[in-house]
Amino acid sequence: MSRQSNRTTDSKKMNSELFTLTYGALVTQLCKDYENDEEVNKQLDKMGYNIGVRLIEDFLARSSIGRCQDFRETADVIAKSAFKTYLGITPSVTNWSPAGDEFSLILENNPLVDFVELPDTHSTLIYSNLLCGVLRGALEMVQMAVDVRFVQDTLRGDNVTEIRMKFIKRIEENLPAGDE
Amino acid sequence: MSRQSNRTTDSKKMNSELFTLTYGALVTQLCKDYENDEEVNKQLDKMGYNIGVRLIEDFLARSSIGRCQDFRETADVIAKSAFKTYLGITPSVTNWSPAGDEFSLILENNPLVDFVELPDTHSTLIYSNLLCGVLRGALEMVQMAVDVRFVQDTLRGDNVTEIRMKFIKRIEENLPAGDE
Repeated sequence: MSRQSNRTTDSKKMNSELFTLTYGALVTQLCKDYENDEEVNKQLDKMGYNIGVRLIEDFLARSSIGRCQDFRETADVIAKSAFKTYLGITPSVTNWSPAGDEFSLILENNPLVDFVELPDTHSTLIYSNLLCGVLRGALEMVQMAVDVRFVQDTLRGDNVTEIRMKFIKRIEENLPAGDE
Repeated sequence: MSRQSNRTTDSKKMNSELFTLTYGALVTQLCKDYENDEEVNKQLDKMGYNIGVRLIEDFLARSSIGRCQDFRETADVIAKSAFKTYLGITPSVTNWSPAGDEFSLILENNPLVDFVELPDTHSTLIYSNLLCGVLRGALEMVQMAVDVRFVQDTLRGDNVTEIRMKFIKRIEENLPAGDE
């Protein structure tokens, strides 16, 4: 599906439940389509990437946030503005690496997993992996290459859900980027 | 994915864009999976049905709305409460049949189709058909059998998006119902 150039920027606020259940339908469909969890995880990340590449435009248009001075500011914008806007939650930012190039987002309440229990047959499924792709794709569009992955997940028995983000490099502005 | 019995009922308000793009990823995936638009339309309706069957519980818990006296009240609750809660829009209710058993929901601004243009190769795709399934599934759980379908769609060049709802019958309370 291609993007409409003349779409309005007025936004609709909605409760998260329909999104949560629709996301569940997407994951369920991918579990039917692909042979193993690893493939599903990869697809979710890829889909998320393509979403992030588009979502960043909406985000920048909406938030009037300029270029972040450093990775700490980026972390704050992601947690307090991006997650708040598009998922209705504000994760905490913790576990900084000494070099300041890695941090964790702690999600106490991940809306994607309301209603969800993982069956034993999908013990290696990273259910919310779309989010990693979204973050990766969005940041790539503002010239930041990052590694994003789940290191804890309440769905898999952990106490919290933790997304680990690692800064890799700044991308040269003149490199082409787009759908994977 | 199965339902969690002990989930909290606190809700998150989110902007619709991430939902819109995720829904787009779902439709795109189904277009890859199934041979023709008709099959995709059917799958979207079926997925929607399964979502509606679950969403109604959340809706009833949240809204403290009792049994509707008639189909007109049902129409009002759907437009002013359900659509507002889960999609952030309030369609208008119009075009009542003389017998009062059919009406239309007019969506001036369908959040599912922000960012979207239908390619020529999918001219018979009912892109937002998930919504029909959601309505059908949710109403079935409150003992109403309804027929729901898109009769106009801005994505296909119409001026508005129109969902037509027709009351079929009241379902006996003791019939089992559940996932299709």
